[in-house]
Amino acid sequence: MKNYINLIIAFLISISTFAQEKPVKIVFDVTSNDTIVHQSTIRHVKAMSKAYPESEFEVVMYSGSIDMVLKEKSSVAFDLEVLAKNENITFVICEGTMKRHKIDASEIIPGVTSVPDGILEIIQKQAEGWGYIKEGQ
Amino acid sequence: MKNYINLIIAFLISISTFAQEKPVKIVFDVTSNDTIVHQSTIRHVKAMSKAYPESEFEVVMYSGSIDMVLKEKSSVAFDLEVLAKNENITFVICEGTMKRHKIDASEIIPGVTSVPDGILEIIQKQAEGWGYIKEGQ
Amino acid sequence: MKNYINLIIAFLISISTFAQEKPVKIVFDVTSNDTIVHQSTIRHVKAMSKAYPESEFEVVMYSGSIDMVLKEKSSVAFDLEVLAKNENITFVICEGTMKRHKIDASEIIPGVTSVPDGILEIIQKQAEGWGYIKEGQ
Repeated sequence: MKNYINLIIAFLISISTFAQEKPVKIVFDVTSNDTIVHQSTIRHVKAMSKAYPESEFEVVMYSGSIDMVLKEKSSVAFDLEVLAKNENITFVICEGTMKRHKIDASEIIPGVTSVPDGILEIIQKQAEGWGYIKEGQ
Repeated sequence: MKNYINLIIAFLISISTFAQEKPVKIVFDVTSNDTIVHQSTIRHVKAMSKAYPESEFEVVMYSGSIDMVLKEKSSVAFDLEVLAKNENITFVICEGTMKRHKIDASEIIPGVTSVPDGILEIIQKQAEGWGYIKEGQ
Repeated sequence: MKNYINLIIAFLISISTFAQEKPVKIVFDVTSNDTIVHQSTIRHVKAMSKAYPESEFEVVMYSGSIDMVLKEKSSVAFDLEVLAKNENITFVICEGTMKRHKIDASEIIPGVTSVPDGILEIIQKQAEGWGYIKEGQ
């Protein structure tokens, strides 16, 4: 009996060791309409992706942050488009937010993808073990 | 021996499959005194609870967000009271915050419940596997 | 066969019971330059550490919150220095943020420690099971 308990413990330890060794995954939550928040988000993603190239980053924009992804209005359009070309960096805008602001896909910065629901996207990433960072003042 | 390892793996996989299938649970953290944040919180809870009626939502208000639950001051009093009637939506105010602002229970919008400590409530929900969304600009 | 399944279930239940009984661990994320946010963060840590003396608290400051740890500029210098003397309370500033603001270690309030990357610190704490609270309006 004791052997099986040891076996289970060893197995659980091996799972947890594996978990610690894998690269970080971070989902960033951006809801602010403040360009300072948009700029610091880009700075964070740029610095983190440079320091941890094996890691994965996803920036989810919804609620008040719609301007951040608009070609004509974003204060970070250039950097965002360049960063989005990295395989391990994803920028997603909430389709509910697009609809509410009457935004057409053609107005969005190239490379930004969309999800039906920004909050659900974040919660699902959390459930998959991604770290969560709320951007904001 | 190998059979038992397979058994354990199968068991753990079945747990994880079950976890993925169960409806989402989200705790919202509101500390802002900004009515725009109060309104977007209500909009998020309304939209999510409509889209995912099997899920559970809890809005924890503490620190600067006391006005959101006050009958006489809340900009979202009507919607909050209606939403709170749903079995799967809970609004809770921190009793420490009530005390600090000298608020009596009679001043609180009907349907809002209270917890001794807002932060502890959020941390406990996270520990139980609930997703976490910080509301704010 | 059934016996081993029962054994595994009992073992997993015992793990989860243990998890619920251990004291809370909370990492606070502060990026705001707003002194009201600095003051509410200190108020939260003070109240929580008094109520739950067996628990652990870490406040990670980065991005816009640099003033909070500067001897000459912090609006919470005294309280922060006193709280930092507790074994179960840690205040850490991001070295990347210090560099960006050209801050020397001598300008930092005594007791504050530093980490190379504030976001990585927070994500690692989350991965270790710490609860996460974003401070902010």
